[in-house]
Amino acid sequence: MAEHPKDLLSLADWPRASVEGLLARAAELKRLRGSDRHPRPLAGRSVLLYFAKPSLRTLVTFQVGVAELGGHPVLLPPGQVRIGEREPLEDVARNLERWVHAVVARVYGHDMIETLAAHARVPVINALSDLLHPCQALADALTVAENADLKHARLTYLGDGNNMAHSLLNLAGCLGLRLVVCTPPDYAPDPGLAERAAERASESGGEIRLESDPRAAVERADFVYTDVWASMGQEDEAAARAEVFRPYQINAELLAAAPASVRLLHCLPAHRGEEITHEVFESDASLVFDQAENRLHAQKAVLELLATPD
Amino acid sequence: MAEHPKDLLSLADWPRASVEGLLARAAELKRLRGSDRHPRPLAGRSVLLYFAKPSLRTLVTFQVGVAELGGHPVLLPPGQVRIGEREPLEDVARNLERWVHAVVARVYGHDMIETLAAHARVPVINALSDLLHPCQALADALTVAENADLKHARLTYLGDGNNMAHSLLNLAGCLGLRLVVCTPPDYAPDPGLAERAAERASESGGEIRLESDPRAAVERADFVYTDVWASMGQEDEAAARAEVFRPYQINAELLAAAPASVRLLHCLPAHRGEEITHEVFESDASLVFDQAENRLHAQKAVLELLATPD
Amino acid sequence: MAEHPKDLLSLADWPRASVEGLLARAAELKRLRGSDRHPRPLAGRSVLLYFAKPSLRTLVTFQVGVAELGGHPVLLPPGQVRIGEREPLEDVARNLERWVHAVVARVYGHDMIETLAAHARVPVINALSDLLHPCQALADALTVAENADLKHARLTYLGDGNNMAHSLLNLAGCLGLRLVVCTPPDYAPDPGLAERAAERASESGGEIRLESDPRAAVERADFVYTDVWASMGQEDEAAARAEVFRPYQINAELLAAAPASVRLLHCLPAHRGEEITHEVFESDASLVFDQAENRLHAQKAVLELLATPD
Repeated sequence: MAEHPKDLLSLADWPRASVEGLLARAAELKRLRGSDRHPRPLAGRSVLLYFAKPSLRTLVTFQVGVAELGGHPVLLPPGQVRIGEREPLEDVARNLERWVHAVVARVYGHDMIETLAAHARVPVINALSDLLHPCQALADALTVAENADLKHARLTYLGDGNNMAHSLLNLAGCLGLRLVVCTPPDYAPDPGLAERAAERASESGGEIRLESDPRAAVERADFVYTDVWASMGQEDEAAARAEVFRPYQINAELLAAAPASVRLLHCLPAHRGEEITHEVFESDASLVFDQAENRLHAQKAVLELLATPD
Repeated sequence: MAEHPKDLLSLADWPRASVEGLLARAAELKRLRGSDRHPRPLAGRSVLLYFAKPSLRTLVTFQVGVAELGGHPVLLPPGQVRIGEREPLEDVARNLERWVHAVVARVYGHDMIETLAAHARVPVINALSDLLHPCQALADALTVAENADLKHARLTYLGDGNNMAHSLLNLAGCLGLRLVVCTPPDYAPDPGLAERAAERASESGGEIRLESDPRAAVERADFVYTDVWASMGQEDEAAARAEVFRPYQINAELLAAAPASVRLLHCLPAHRGEEITHEVFESDASLVFDQAENRLHAQKAVLELLATPD
Repeated sequence: MAEHPKDLLSLADWPRASVEGLLARAAELKRLRGSDRHPRPLAGRSVLLYFAKPSLRTLVTFQVGVAELGGHPVLLPPGQVRIGEREPLEDVARNLERWVHAVVARVYGHDMIETLAAHARVPVINALSDLLHPCQALADALTVAENADLKHARLTYLGDGNNMAHSLLNLAGCLGLRLVVCTPPDYAPDPGLAERAAERASESGGEIRLESDPRAAVERADFVYTDVWASMGQEDEAAARAEVFRPYQINAELLAAAPASVRLLHCLPAHRGEEITHEVFESDASLVFDQAENRLHAQKAVLELLATPD
């Protein structure tokens, strides 16, 4: 069986069986939460949390997750460290590996997290880069699996071809899911990444389709997923983007084209009235807070797998 | 017996018996501190600490308090999250309740903490808002009780009719204490809050009086309490306020009008030479560092009561 | 036997036997790390970490160190507190001693840490001031001891007569080491400090020499040590300093004048191409990441000694 990498940088590098194992374990940890049988494999161990970008969900869920596994989360406020400015990332990595048992990093450039992982002997977990957000994709898979048969469910992502779209593509490729990614033509996901994901998906019985027509995209969807139109750092493009993305808003009219049983996903924060209407966001079809909760469980499974002593 | 609310937002909402229970338990936790018999009811639990305003006492005592109770304090540096900007408070609340077992928040507007409490199923603890500071009032009550009979002691607050004045009013109303709040006429506490507190106090044998003459206010005082004249965010009014508040300074001359046994309280930080003279602040009558210590014990009692599993 | 002080502010105040004990214990804690026999003497205790200056190594190693000893590290983000601005340091100290069992502080002026220590009954540990960096010097001693006979090894420090030079002088004075401190004439260490260190060193069989000729300084060196030329806060002098310090760069040419077996030390962060060449920094002779690791072990020994209950 293929061995998983030392790090979780991209689900594209991970074998299917390992990811399936993570999802099963996340569900188990969710059941065990708060009980005496919840494991503490990180007892006596420390996990560094470095967040160069603002964060609510990621910062809280990793602190809580490390603590629930018995470990100690080590915080590095970004103003304190300015990783890569005061000191080359290579050196930072070779320092950190001496003290902590894993590094969780939220960075701007994806190359930063690759550099950290290449130079640190300890596992590095991508907690969002400008290219990918694999921990969110794992939480999403867990949420879908709680509400449907993951392998047969039809998932449609609508909006920007951003790191979230990329990670859903990698997830679908890895697990062989049925995924439609629907974006304005000029905001499509990275073509190479999408192509590799589609190939991998087809090898394991899944199907990935890129699309630009929102109605066609949601027609058979069991789950419709969206994300903000302007990600962190793109706030100045927000007005121009709002114009282009308007037809991709998840609203009652668009959902009339989808199956009545369709469920809604959003990785949050949500901008009501932009990518999703208030009405839809607050409807019974919305699973967004389950998704948020599942960040915790999915990441605990990752931490347990990667940071537990042999 | 009246049940206490899920949250500690204002002592005005809390039944007398619950607050008496908190104070007794705080004294007990103080005795047990450092011993093997100290309880750890928050083991395996996480408490979120969100501080939008600068803090020394509150930030340290809540971190220490959660840890001593066996829990894990989760920090959210304010620059990281900008609660209510990146994401509506309602959504933040519905995220947090999925991960942590209580939320401690220091905010600007009191409505922020009310919104968090209304939308989160987990307890929310007010660690200072522009309206109220109930945790400080509990620590003050514990300090008075260590030095006198709380129900019969005469407490005089001198200075600004601010959140501290409000919380002492609520405390006196809740427990039936004897309280004089003495402010310049234009800086009186909120009239509705003061009136409700006075009514409640009189029902339980206490007495609340508003006053603007400092000498009359301290005449029979067992404890004289003051706070800074310009709170956080009012620094630009400091010069004008210094003029108005000058007669309310606690100094040797004013204290000559008080009983010789009078003790001094201050919630800190103190501005020597403004609301209190250096001489008085450093005198043997000062209990200010006991008050600061009691923040820890009082808050631990609150955390234990609200955040322990059923 | 002379008793060690309550605080670790300067190794100049510490008796030789206590420092030797710290180094032996640090080596022992390094061996025990990750094993069941590792002690947890700080269980139930909290240690405050206050860092007014940016930090990677110190902030991470103290968080990890406190946690590995079973204690709880309490973070005070500097923007949150502005120690000494909102409130006099004396008052801060008298607050902190009520809640935490030790204070670790990285400050600008060394007088700040002396004030904290003078007014707090709990131990205060200097995690870098503009004058001294004793924790780094302990880590350096541990690193030298792992590679040579500490008492007979010849150590040469090249560069700025800064807090690192001062702490190595104090270390050499305390333990009786053989140290050459080689700086440009205008950047010599504090003369009084150097003189006292030299006297103390000679009393215990060591030898301290100040020098300004780099070749003469490294001639018999077993270890050559350097630090950045412009410390935090001196960035605007960087260009002028680069000119003056150029002859003190550790490079292949200079090392040709040293014994072939010479080893390299640097307290990091390193500025390759300035105080050390890339080639030398990355050579097999470099012990810099061992030094960084040893920060953890040395500081744990300090914490254990100072913050454990009697």
